[in-house]
Amino acid sequence: MKLHGYFRSSASYRVRIALNLKGLGAEHLAHHLRKGEQCAPAYLAINPQGLVPTLESDQGAILTQSLAIIEWLDEIHPEPPLLPKDPLRRAKVRAFAMALACDTHPVQNLKVLARLRQLGLPEEQVTEWAAWANREGLAACETLIANEAGPFCFGAAPTIADLCLVPQLANARRFGVDVAAYPKLLKAEAAAKAVKAFADAAPDRQPDAE
Amino acid sequence: MKLHGYFRSSASYRVRIALNLKGLGAEHLAHHLRKGEQCAPAYLAINPQGLVPTLESDQGAILTQSLAIIEWLDEIHPEPPLLPKDPLRRAKVRAFAMALACDTHPVQNLKVLARLRQLGLPEEQVTEWAAWANREGLAACETLIANEAGPFCFGAAPTIADLCLVPQLANARRFGVDVAAYPKLLKAEAAAKAVKAFADAAPDRQPDAE
Repeated sequence: MKLHGYFRSSASYRVRIALNLKGLGAEHLAHHLRKGEQCAPAYLAINPQGLVPTLESDQGAILTQSLAIIEWLDEIHPEPPLLPKDPLRRAKVRAFAMALACDTHPVQNLKVLARLRQLGLPEEQVTEWAAWANREGLAACETLIANEAGPFCFGAAPTIADLCLVPQLANARRFGVDVAAYPKLLKAEAAAKAVKAFADAAPDRQPDAE
Repeated sequence: MKLHGYFRSSASYRVRIALNLKGLGAEHLAHHLRKGEQCAPAYLAINPQGLVPTLESDQGAILTQSLAIIEWLDEIHPEPPLLPKDPLRRAKVRAFAMALACDTHPVQNLKVLARLRQLGLPEEQVTEWAAWANREGLAACETLIANEAGPFCFGAAPTIADLCLVPQLANARRFGVDVAAYPKLLKAEAAAKAVKAFADAAPDRQPDAE
């Protein structure tokens, strides 16, 4: 497999964790988002959104959207599972993941922040926008797992919730968010970071890290 | 079941279509988003994001995030299926749905547009922001189904892709997007709108329509 990504992309980071948890190797192809490499025609031909990640399977299939890629990996390589078996628990885990992957990350991604700059907003308002999006999402997620026992977001093993949480907390810190406001999330993050699959997927451990 | 929603919310619209396709009844509880009713403490207690929809099951379980709700409905009421059986096709359908549900809709939702106004942007720039988000997402989706045979987004039956597409096109038109640029999407929309489950879920058919 080939994973098209970028060291700091939190959506790529989610897929790297999933591949590591499943014990799957992949060739990592870096596209420098700040240099606009994701908008090169050759890349747009496989990912018309001009976003990372994109996964190319060994059979040449092209998969886009991090959560769709992760659900696919979980379906064809079921062990270890990244979703609980019980439908209601699956829905809770997916809702947590989507609170970050739908309502938080896309509102603070590079494309949106670039658009805010184009509209003339000064850099400090752009950063505050990104911090606001992170605070909104993380505060909701803290509540969503308020009654969970841990150590991971939803129980004794990592799920797609943890795959979304760890990269999002990294973003939040980068934008200056005081993450101490989310103690349940920090506990889940600590549990995840102790797992080699998560540690090896961290941005600063990637070949294209700066 | 009880569905907390709003007639014009495209995420609520997706779930209404799913319920109709599955032949499931639900009591509809309207929360007027423009009046801020989604931020009432009683509602935040069941949906800490202050977003619609929320589904309450007959057993009192609380489900949030439209795609998580729809995947749950599809798991516990498998007929008619809203995802293909083949894992790769499922991934394609989910990626299309998420291109809209993650990268398009949240960037143009009420909360984000309100924030832009707070930052002092004039109304025409706020509308252009929403139109831009829709154009970006719809153009990518047009490419994602370029080689599909139709009549629906992915074949002979509606999937979660169609459940996301129809409400998103309604948003796009509301923000003045020239949707004629997306002929494949319009064909899939026409196929969907001919299905009673889609027609009955339309915003102007809801009791809280204005």
